[in-house]
Amino acid sequence: MIKGHPQLTRNGELKHLLTVEGLPRQVVTHILDTAAQFVTPAEGGDGELGKVPLLRGKSVFNLFFENSTRTRTTFEIAAQRLSADVQNLNINASSTSKGESLLDTINNLSAMHADMFVVRHAESGAPYLIAQHCPPHVHVINAGDGRHAHPTQGLLDMYTIRHFKKDFTNLTVAIVGDILHSRVARSDIHALTTLGVPEVRAIGPRTLLPTGLEHLGVRVFHDMDEGLKGVDVVIMLRLQNERMSGALLPSAGEYFKYYGLTPARLARAKPDAIVMHPGPMNRGVEIDSAVADGPQSVILNQVTFGIAVRMAVMSIVAGHNH
Amino acid sequence: MIKGHPQLTRNGELKHLLTVEGLPRQVVTHILDTAAQFVTPAEGGDGELGKVPLLRGKSVFNLFFENSTRTRTTFEIAAQRLSADVQNLNINASSTSKGESLLDTINNLSAMHADMFVVRHAESGAPYLIAQHCPPHVHVINAGDGRHAHPTQGLLDMYTIRHFKKDFTNLTVAIVGDILHSRVARSDIHALTTLGVPEVRAIGPRTLLPTGLEHLGVRVFHDMDEGLKGVDVVIMLRLQNERMSGALLPSAGEYFKYYGLTPARLARAKPDAIVMHPGPMNRGVEIDSAVADGPQSVILNQVTFGIAVRMAVMSIVAGHNH
Amino acid sequence: MIKGHPQLTRNGELKHLLTVEGLPRQVVTHILDTAAQFVTPAEGGDGELGKVPLLRGKSVFNLFFENSTRTRTTFEIAAQRLSADVQNLNINASSTSKGESLLDTINNLSAMHADMFVVRHAESGAPYLIAQHCPPHVHVINAGDGRHAHPTQGLLDMYTIRHFKKDFTNLTVAIVGDILHSRVARSDIHALTTLGVPEVRAIGPRTLLPTGLEHLGVRVFHDMDEGLKGVDVVIMLRLQNERMSGALLPSAGEYFKYYGLTPARLARAKPDAIVMHPGPMNRGVEIDSAVADGPQSVILNQVTFGIAVRMAVMSIVAGHNH
Repeated sequence: MIKGHPQLTRNGELKHLLTVEGLPRQVVTHILDTAAQFVTPAEGGDGELGKVPLLRGKSVFNLFFENSTRTRTTFEIAAQRLSADVQNLNINASSTSKGESLLDTINNLSAMHADMFVVRHAESGAPYLIAQHCPPHVHVINAGDGRHAHPTQGLLDMYTIRHFKKDFTNLTVAIVGDILHSRVARSDIHALTTLGVPEVRAIGPRTLLPTGLEHLGVRVFHDMDEGLKGVDVVIMLRLQNERMSGALLPSAGEYFKYYGLTPARLARAKPDAIVMHPGPMNRGVEIDSAVADGPQSVILNQVTFGIAVRMAVMSIVAGHNH
Repeated sequence: MIKGHPQLTRNGELKHLLTVEGLPRQVVTHILDTAAQFVTPAEGGDGELGKVPLLRGKSVFNLFFENSTRTRTTFEIAAQRLSADVQNLNINASSTSKGESLLDTINNLSAMHADMFVVRHAESGAPYLIAQHCPPHVHVINAGDGRHAHPTQGLLDMYTIRHFKKDFTNLTVAIVGDILHSRVARSDIHALTTLGVPEVRAIGPRTLLPTGLEHLGVRVFHDMDEGLKGVDVVIMLRLQNERMSGALLPSAGEYFKYYGLTPARLARAKPDAIVMHPGPMNRGVEIDSAVADGPQSVILNQVTFGIAVRMAVMSIVAGHNH
Repeated sequence: MIKGHPQLTRNGELKHLLTVEGLPRQVVTHILDTAAQFVTPAEGGDGELGKVPLLRGKSVFNLFFENSTRTRTTFEIAAQRLSADVQNLNINASSTSKGESLLDTINNLSAMHADMFVVRHAESGAPYLIAQHCPPHVHVINAGDGRHAHPTQGLLDMYTIRHFKKDFTNLTVAIVGDILHSRVARSDIHALTTLGVPEVRAIGPRTLLPTGLEHLGVRVFHDMDEGLKGVDVVIMLRLQNERMSGALLPSAGEYFKYYGLTPARLARAKPDAIVMHPGPMNRGVEIDSAVADGPQSVILNQVTFGIAVRMAVMSIVAGHNH
């Protein structure tokens, strides 16, 4: 489904944001640099609080085929701060229930002068299909597709790491938990590799790690104490409750015993290691509250930076019309 | 329920838009001319893209007693482009479930300084009731009431026909399908007659055509090949799935066999005939994809013109306060 | 849960609005005076219609943990008129269903640069918890918590009484109905007492009046004719349908017989007495339509003033950042 660089123009500029995979390092860096302009000094950036007119008169459509109030809200806020008009469409409750096809829906919304689609879909690849299909002036941002990618989450994670660690090229980063089902982990791994992180580790039980991680340059650990040893960054993943009811895991308590991030476990990492989580957290399942609310947690910074990164992506793609 | 011209002021200006029936030709033409100012040159109009301040500070309430994300979205976009503030109220989920009457709801919203109600209701006549009841500064736009009327759809269809055919007075227009249950068909027939179209045809099975069409000046056909012969415009109607389960029709496949618009059937019309559909389409039921996506289809133009026509109606009624 | 004045700054200025209880008279009066600037001359105020830029660039989050389209709409309109950006979050349908705690949700939204939370919650005290927890620049407005308080309703009722009666210090005010379950009644009683109303009466059946009303300085009546005698203001309460199915009341018809406000009963009050109701009304249960729509009813004025009072509260709290 992915041919060449479907998200880049011939000049190498970002037209859509579909995945972090294959995104050139200078494009990633340009997004992070742009985002810094939307972070206020109080938050460690150079930007001013308030609205900017970059997307005034533009129509941004949040097309959420899968419900996610939290992610939709971050995109809606980002668009509002750019002065865009926002339409929230919960697609399950509308046309497709009348039997209209995905592409007919996209055709119709494009004909209403949509300028940007923010797409969340349970099926991997849906944002690609939409990007290939829609008219040239429309931009598509993937807000999570199946198990495949969640590129703005990956980019905001990179912003957060750069903010606290400055340089990527001397870091060890551990990703812990249900990597098998996680589009966040997939986007993080591609971004970390692109930015030159020398050691990326995956920590989790065999049932929750995909095969082939080594081919992506990732070191695999099943023992958490061993995996956390000396790391600079710990990215915890959310354990979906539905995994617990299946055969993959015995129980939440059992999981926490082996893979929950406690202060004692975190002590295995470097003393200045930071702890990240894409949210929403399952306290007491994958993370202890003492860590989640502790001095090494940068989880709420991630949320703040996430608005800025989404503003950056929206303003960059909207600037490249062909 | 309809006395005199409930939607016109004493000076003959449009105060509400409730139905196309009885609307003077010069009012219809004024709406279409105004809409042209909101269509961009790229789309064949004279307007500029972007927001205009005509409804700045005004509050538009979308009162959808019947769910229709598509229609609600078009009105919301139109209102946003006019710089209005928009409130979307799904009324089923709110006050009326607490036993509040329709008119109490209207009273309350009017007391909140509503300037305009866009009303969709499953019962014919509900927008009239609201227009008669609300205070003088409030305007009502019918976004579809029962089987009765869908005037903005009728008007955008007229805009589309005028755009492609220029002159109404030498046209033959065929409306095909479930005319019995269609408020779109009813609004189209009134508009076409008002604008001087000499021949309007209705094509469909006996079970889906209302009696008395002849009294409206409409020629009735049950054979599609015969009905399409030499027409300039084909307006296809959506076949509601619920009709199939009743006794009215044997099956979707059977329907398509007799009344589906295929390239072969379309060849019976004039070579430059245009094909319209109010959407959402049932591909393979009332229309073949080769036609829907073919060179004679103007279905997506209808969507684009629909935004402009709704902007025109909103700005015209808001300009006449008495 | 309430220590000191959790809603006031050290300088005695309003930072949050959580309850009317304990709010100093000058703060209440300042809110009412400010609201008058948002009421137009046609409605009896000094303000201009339209938008004001007081909250431009601010993000207001409507956090409705309990559904109330009507109340949410009034806050959304108030925020729009102040030029704020508004986010509507129906929290049941989102994060908390993924097991995220209330405080994690608040942390996340605060990290997205929320400036104000308008909170509706089925549990008494939830807005306090949020106010204690959120960062210093964030303001909380209670839009109704359990049976505890509904302060903006209390304040708009005071605005309405002041508008029609000018002076509080010579009034007799009767509150009629289900006071036991009513946060409106609780807020009204505190506000009336604070503003110096010499006689507040509670009228209702024993099963719907809480104990201890006398300690709040309220005179209790079980006979409506007696209780209404000579009053200046009648505040009717909504009778929740769910009360009828329990053991508290025999039937709606029976309730109306003893406590429904009819023209005959209203004649017991002063000739210029006004009739109020927080809405939505149960016509024929607690109030007769002849009264609801009669010359003494100021129920729709309450709605209009409610927008102005909510604008006043929002602009006042947003002006005091510490």
